[in-house]
Amino acid sequence: MASAPPAGSKPRQLHLNINILHAGFYASAWRMPQTRPRDFLDIDHYVRTARVAERGKFDAVFLADRPALESGFDARPFLSLEPTVVLSTIAAHTTHIGLIATASTSFNEPYNIARRFATVDIASRGRAGLNVVTTSDPSAAANFGQTQQAHADRYQRAQEFTEVVRKLWRSWDDDAWVGDKAGARLIDGSKVHPIEHQGDFFSVRGALNVPRSPQGQPVLVQAGGSGAGRDLAARHAEVVFSVGENIEQSAAYAADLRARAVAYGRRPHELVVLPGLATVIGSTEAEARRREQELAELIPIDFAVQRVSQTFGTDLSGLDLDAPFPDVPIPAQGGTTFAQSTLNFAREGNLTFRQLLYKLGGGIGHRVIVGTPEQIADDIQRWFEAGAADGFNLMPDVLPDGLEAFVDEVVPILQRRGLFRTEYSETTLRGHLGLA
Amino acid sequence: MASAPPAGSKPRQLHLNINILHAGFYASAWRMPQTRPRDFLDIDHYVRTARVAERGKFDAVFLADRPALESGFDARPFLSLEPTVVLSTIAAHTTHIGLIATASTSFNEPYNIARRFATVDIASRGRAGLNVVTTSDPSAAANFGQTQQAHADRYQRAQEFTEVVRKLWRSWDDDAWVGDKAGARLIDGSKVHPIEHQGDFFSVRGALNVPRSPQGQPVLVQAGGSGAGRDLAARHAEVVFSVGENIEQSAAYAADLRARAVAYGRRPHELVVLPGLATVIGSTEAEARRREQELAELIPIDFAVQRVSQTFGTDLSGLDLDAPFPDVPIPAQGGTTFAQSTLNFAREGNLTFRQLLYKLGGGIGHRVIVGTPEQIADDIQRWFEAGAADGFNLMPDVLPDGLEAFVDEVVPILQRRGLFRTEYSETTLRGHLGLA
Repeated sequence: MASAPPAGSKPRQLHLNINILHAGFYASAWRMPQTRPRDFLDIDHYVRTARVAERGKFDAVFLADRPALESGFDARPFLSLEPTVVLSTIAAHTTHIGLIATASTSFNEPYNIARRFATVDIASRGRAGLNVVTTSDPSAAANFGQTQQAHADRYQRAQEFTEVVRKLWRSWDDDAWVGDKAGARLIDGSKVHPIEHQGDFFSVRGALNVPRSPQGQPVLVQAGGSGAGRDLAARHAEVVFSVGENIEQSAAYAADLRARAVAYGRRPHELVVLPGLATVIGSTEAEARRREQELAELIPIDFAVQRVSQTFGTDLSGLDLDAPFPDVPIPAQGGTTFAQSTLNFAREGNLTFRQLLYKLGGGIGHRVIVGTPEQIADDIQRWFEAGAADGFNLMPDVLPDGLEAFVDEVVPILQRRGLFRTEYSETTLRGHLGLA
Repeated sequence: MASAPPAGSKPRQLHLNINILHAGFYASAWRMPQTRPRDFLDIDHYVRTARVAERGKFDAVFLADRPALESGFDARPFLSLEPTVVLSTIAAHTTHIGLIATASTSFNEPYNIARRFATVDIASRGRAGLNVVTTSDPSAAANFGQTQQAHADRYQRAQEFTEVVRKLWRSWDDDAWVGDKAGARLIDGSKVHPIEHQGDFFSVRGALNVPRSPQGQPVLVQAGGSGAGRDLAARHAEVVFSVGENIEQSAAYAADLRARAVAYGRRPHELVVLPGLATVIGSTEAEARRREQELAELIPIDFAVQRVSQTFGTDLSGLDLDAPFPDVPIPAQGGTTFAQSTLNFAREGNLTFRQLLYKLGGGIGHRVIVGTPEQIADDIQRWFEAGAADGFNLMPDVLPDGLEAFVDEVVPILQRRGLFRTEYSETTLRGHLGLA
C-alpha cells in the first residue's frame, strides 16, 4: 500500500466526494424519464443532492467550474451556476459534509479567492475546500481579454497563485484576537502580518482582511495529470482529483505523486488521491447494463463527437462511427491526460468510435463502472487496497437517483466491510479527510 | 416632489435597506454591554440581523465591501467576510428581503461578477442587487499589484465594467430555454448571444454561462457623489446610496441625478435615491441622548482621528481636540463627498474636533439622528415628502438591537401613516422597489 498511515492511527478508510456534475455524469442524464431537464439551473437540485451525500456520510461535495459557456450547451447541461454561491447555499442546509469548489487561477486574483474561500470556511464552520485549476480553454480566455496561455505559463501562474493564497490564509496568527471591550483592543495588530509578496505574476501586500478560518486553511485540492500538474499537486495539494484508468496506472500515479511530495519535504499520507469514478448501478448486472445502454443511446451523438474532438484538439466529425477508433495523436498541451485515457480506453477495449463514445458517456475520459451494488463495492475495495485510490470522486450516472442508489446500496456494503465511516466523527472537512 | 410616480400607480411608499455594517454604525458599537465583539466575524450575526429586517418588511440587506484590511482594524470591527457568501447564506434563511452586495470594479473581472450575482439571483429566487463601487483606497490597490488609479480612470473603468455586466445579463433571450428531451434540444442556441465587447478596459466575448436570472437582471446599485459618480449612477443605477446631509442638499442631489438620468433617456422615477441614515433610538429623547453619549465616549479616539485624517487625506492627529475644527481643504479626488459632508457638519454645528468625532460616530460623514421612535419617524417622513429621499439606507447605531428598536417601534408608526408596506406584496427585490 502506497500510503500506510502512521503507526497507532486508526485503520485507513475510504474517502468519498460527490461530484455534482449538473444532471449526472452522462451527457444524456437530463433525457432520462426520472430527471427534470432544468434541475442543473436550480439551486435546490444541488442542495438536495448534497443532502443525499451527507446522509451517505460522504466527505465532501465537489463542484467543477469553467468561466465560459461550453460548446454543446444546446444539447446537454453545462457548468453554469457560480460554485461558491452554490456551496454557501448548501452550507446553510447541511451540517457535516465538506464543500469543495473549483476556481481558475487563470482568471482570478489570489486575494479575492483567498478571501472568498476563507469566508465559505467561516460560513460552513470549517468545511471549505478550494480546487485550483488552470484553464486551457480559449473560449474562457476570450471572456477575460486574454488569448490562450501556454501550458508552462499557466502552471507557473497557478503555482504562484496557490502560494499567495496560502500565504494570505496564514497572514493572521491564531491568537491575534483580543476582543477586550474595556481596553478598546479588538485585535493584536502585531499578530497580523502583511505578506509583501512580489513575484512574476502577482504583487500582493496583504494581510488578508479575514482572520484565521475554522480550519486554519481551507483544504487545497488539485487535479493535475501532466508533469507540471503533478508538481503543483505535490507541492500544495492535500486532495488530488485524478484520472484513474486502471489499477496499475492509478497506483503508479499515486506513487509518483507521493514521491514528488516527499521531495518537497512533505509526508506521503498528507496527500489524499481520489480518482474520478462514474457509476451505473442496477439491482442485477443485466439491469445495470440495460441502464447503461439506455444512457448511451440517449447521448446526443454530435455533441459527444465534438467533445472528443476537443479533447484531442482535432476535428473528428468525419470519422466512421462504426470503424475502430484510430490512433489520434495526443495533443502537446491542454487536456493531455484525458486524451491519453480516452485513447487507452479505445485500445484496451478495441472499440469502434461509437463504442468509445458510449463508454465515455459523453464525458472526457473518467472510468465508468457498471454493475450491482456488490460489484461496485468490490471494485472500490480492490482499488483502495491496491493503493490505487484513497477513495473516489464519485460521478453517478444520473443525479440524484444514481447517488441515492449508491448511498442506499453501496455505502452499507462498504460500511459492513469496515471500509467507510458509519457516522461522522469530525465536523470539519480536514477532520473527515484525516488531514492536519 | 422630485419623483412623482406615473398617474394611476400606487401611492409612493418608502424603501428601507438595512446596511449591516458589522457591529453597527458606531465604531464603538462592539464595546456596548449588549454586543459580542466577535459577532461581525460570525455568519449568524448577519443572518439574525437580516431576519429582523425581514420581520420589519425592509426592501433589502445592503453589504458594503473593501478588499483590504482597513487601518484601525485593531480598535473596531472592519469589513471582512466576502459579501456574496454572506448574501447566499442569508438567502437560505429568508424568503423575501432583497440582497445587495458591493463589488469593486477596480479589482474584479466583469464576467466573474456578472456570473456570481446572476447566481445569487437564482439562489434567492430574484432578490439580488449589485452595488458597483470604484475603490480609491491605495491599500486595496496594493493587494492587486496596482497603484492607486486616478479618479477619472477609475470611473471610466467602472462605467465600462457596468456596461459589460449589463450586456452579459442580457446575453440570453428570455425564451432561450427549450428542454425538449425527445428532440435532445436543451437550449435554443440562436437565442444566446455573444456580446463581443471590445473596449478600452475590457474585451469580453460572452455569452454568460448563466441564463436569464429570475429578475432578468439583478438590481444595479451605485453610490456616487462626484460628477463622474453621479454620471455613472444616472446612466446605470436603479438604486443610489447617497450621502444626505440635510434636506436641501439631498433634494438638490436627487433632482440633479434624475436630470442626468433623463439626459440618458431614462425616466426620473427609475432611480430610487436612498441616503444613508444612522439612528440612535430611545424611548424618551433623554434616553436616546444618553445612548448617543455612551456610544460617543466609547469611540476609540485615535481611530476616529485617523479615520477623519483619511477622509481629508491629511494627518490631523496634531489638532487640538477641544478647539473648533478648522477649514481643512477638501481633497481633489477620493472621498470628496465625505470630506465635504464632514466639513459641513463641523460648520453647521460650530463643533470642536472632539464634538465632530462624536457626531460622526467614528463613521465617515453620514447623517445621524437621535430621538424617540416618533421623532425618527417624523424626520423620515419629512425627508420623504420633501423629495430628499425615496427611503433610506439605514445604519442603526448598534446591531442587532438598534435595528430591533427601529423595526418594533419606528416601522409601525411609518406603517400607520401609510408610508411603508405592512406586508410584502412582491417576491423580488425589483418588485419591492417598484422597478421594471
